[in-house]
Amino acid sequence: MAKRVTGPEIEKLIQLLAKVPGLGPRSARRAALHLIKKRDQLMGPLSGAMQDAYDKVKICSTCGNVDTADPCTICTDPTRDQSLVIVVEDVGDLWALERAAALNAAYHVLGGTLSPLDGIGPDDLTIAALVDRVKTGEVKELIIAVNATVEGQATAHYITDQLEGMDIKVTRLAHGVPVGGELDYLDEGTLVAALRSRTSL
Amino acid sequence: MAKRVTGPEIEKLIQLLAKVPGLGPRSARRAALHLIKKRDQLMGPLSGAMQDAYDKVKICSTCGNVDTADPCTICTDPTRDQSLVIVVEDVGDLWALERAAALNAAYHVLGGTLSPLDGIGPDDLTIAALVDRVKTGEVKELIIAVNATVEGQATAHYITDQLEGMDIKVTRLAHGVPVGGELDYLDEGTLVAALRSRTSL
Repeated sequence: MAKRVTGPEIEKLIQLLAKVPGLGPRSARRAALHLIKKRDQLMGPLSGAMQDAYDKVKICSTCGNVDTADPCTICTDPTRDQSLVIVVEDVGDLWALERAAALNAAYHVLGGTLSPLDGIGPDDLTIAALVDRVKTGEVKELIIAVNATVEGQATAHYITDQLEGMDIKVTRLAHGVPVGGELDYLDEGTLVAALRSRTSL
Repeated sequence: MAKRVTGPEIEKLIQLLAKVPGLGPRSARRAALHLIKKRDQLMGPLSGAMQDAYDKVKICSTCGNVDTADPCTICTDPTRDQSLVIVVEDVGDLWALERAAALNAAYHVLGGTLSPLDGIGPDDLTIAALVDRVKTGEVKELIIAVNATVEGQATAHYITDQLEGMDIKVTRLAHGVPVGGELDYLDEGTLVAALRSRTSL
């Protein structure tokens, strides 16, 4: 804004809201006004919840999930099959797979993918912790659910190499046509994979 | 999510973030994860700023602007022409006009528009306060900058009626083609207004 139109505390709130993904400078102003209008119903509770989460947030030392307890909700869930571990790049992927609710499994968050150009090597990821976890003998199957990118696939291969000779089943997500997807819009790589992995009707 | 995957504090943060305009359930999760990743750079400061704004926010008793001081930053700005008052529906409109930085004026926030169907009458808006403000004799021109909707125009007419006989100039925003707009996409009402209010080149 050209001139100050409101108090510095509100300007600061707008500036910080604009850094939240999904909000920009303009929607941050709209969000701030909405929060102020809903001061008691939304702004107060949100401010409290954020402070609470800020104080209590922890990274699970077993799987890398974000939680307020360590070990996390998933690692301590007795109804989950802790011998089936899905390896993901980050916590967002873990939460996305949980929304699908396909498997009642445990997870391992790598914290990224190998990327020599960005200076990210095996020591920057939780690969050693994953190998240690496998060595305890409690894990029977690892599902490598990294993104289908070059870095993701390189990471998957590196992990497989590290587990060489251990008594564990390692699988990866199937490639194929997304459910609801139209062939016309898919790239050749996906179509080749979908054809090769065709299943009988 | 089908099963709990994280602590209740973080679930609550996600739920409340999803109520912020511009964020939905999915982007609220992404926002929460981003806040947690940037715990010290963003989550802490944002939580503090929100609490600070929550504690200090005030509605200016003169103009209705949102601020942390009453009278607000605009009403106490000695470099502004306090005799020129722009009447707007809500604070978002005030801030939008300030971004345009066209006039160095004061404002009056109505708090909505007359809308008999929604049960909003003159007493629900700050029209009486506006009339009082004009009666002090310090205001020389009112620019009615309400939205170009039926309710906005009805409100403009009502205000003009209330000011009948007082020594004040009342104007409204010009109707016309938006700058950068294409004629092809404009409605007939706008084109008629733009033609009638044509200016010489």
